Amino acid sequence: MMIDIANSPLFLVFAVVLILETLKTLGLGTATALRRQKTSRYINPEDAKWLGGEAVEVDHPDAARMFRAQRNNLENLVPFSLLGILYIIIGANLYAGIVYFTLFFMGRIAHTYAYLSEKPKFRRDAYSLGWLSCVLMSIHILIALASQML
Amino acid sequence: MMIDIANSPLFLVFAVVLILETLKTLGLGTATALRRQKTSRYINPEDAKWLGGEAVEVDHPDAARMFRAQRNNLENLVPFSLLGILYIIIGANLYAGIVYFTLFFMGRIAHTYAYLSEKPKFRRDAYSLGWLSCVLMSIHILIALASQML
Amino acid sequence: MMIDIANSPLFLVFAVVLILETLKTLGLGTATALRRQKTSRYINPEDAKWLGGEAVEVDHPDAARMFRAQRNNLENLVPFSLLGILYIIIGANLYAGIVYFTLFFMGRIAHTYAYLSEKPKFRRDAYSLGWLSCVLMSIHILIALASQML
Repeated sequence: MMIDIANSPLFLVFAVVLILETLKTLGLGTATALRRQKTSRYINPEDAKWLGGEAVEVDHPDAARMFRAQRNNLENLVPFSLLGILYIIIGANLYAGIVYFTLFFMGRIAHTYAYLSEKPKFRRDAYSLGWLSCVLMSIHILIALASQML
Repeated sequence: MMIDIANSPLFLVFAVVLILETLKTLGLGTATALRRQKTSRYINPEDAKWLGGEAVEVDHPDAARMFRAQRNNLENLVPFSLLGILYIIIGANLYAGIVYFTLFFMGRIAHTYAYLSEKPKFRRDAYSLGWLSCVLMSIHILIALASQML
Repeated sequence: MMIDIANSPLFLVFAVVLILETLKTLGLGTATALRRQKTSRYINPEDAKWLGGEAVEVDHPDAARMFRAQRNNLENLVPFSLLGILYIIIGANLYAGIVYFTLFFMGRIAHTYAYLSEKPKFRRDAYSLGWLSCVLMSIHILIALASQML
């Protein structure tokens, strides 16, 4: 089956989630750099010399937290994007797709909020939501591919 | 040339490798979190307070190993996915594609096993297999694009 | 609108940038491993035992720098690739696309050079170039999707 990807409503939802999550990741990267500057502790000695601060081997806890929030975002964006692209290419169910993409998006927005506001239980639950979305998509795609082959 | 991606046998192999590698990455992420809990050493102070453990700046070696295995998986999944998508879009040779994808998959399964079971020589060889698959795909795509332009 | 992606000139530019940036990321990964070997300090105790060196919890500064250059490359390759794929799928403007892709590529080549040669100001400017390319692409895609819906 050949689908006109750019005009599918699922692609629209996917594209918006992807762009917002990508901008969040880029924003957290910038926030990490600004936090390093605020704490005046730099991983690169040349930065410490340039901006006047201390050269360290391990980030200041505040910058390290921001960095971990960004890294976690990126680590989840990669599986989600790959599975989402596969899901759209095989032309799987529209409504299930919207549920998966929305679930992921809500989970990841909540995760970033929980990470930065230091709410561990909420962070774990938010993480599980994004994780669940990816696992459900994986199973859905595998079943769709298997049934297509029979 | 326009190909019906969803029905190409190469896409099927690619999709299965991608899903299994994505699930492995997600699984290693969960295993890292569980390992942190088992060693009772947490990077986030709020986690240490919540779950009753020690707040540290550098992970326990066991959790750090699991994390590195996951990170290495993700770092290789990204190049592979991007090259694989390009390879399929340009409609390059089916059999070579199956060899590249299988090579990568075998290399990465072996790499995770070697990392977790602490076999350095095997880990290096497994890594090289996945690495080689990506480099061969890159060259293949560049040549295909160049010959298409002539 | 359905476009023959593999034959679009924008896809060609995208594919070349993607392959070169992917090879750079893989190369920096290999360079990190070689640097560890040169400094004889290993994160994995089994590597230290195998290759005869010291087992450490934090990398030698030289290896850590190479690793950060690689990680930064990968962290920017992911947003760029995802946005680039969306941009091509929606069939957005060819010339703007070439500008975005070229901007990103120039920024990232400059960033790796600046990181390894320890030029902090140049590194920040190069990073901003790649960052700007991604933000502009995001806005462009969002506007294109919105105007398509009206």
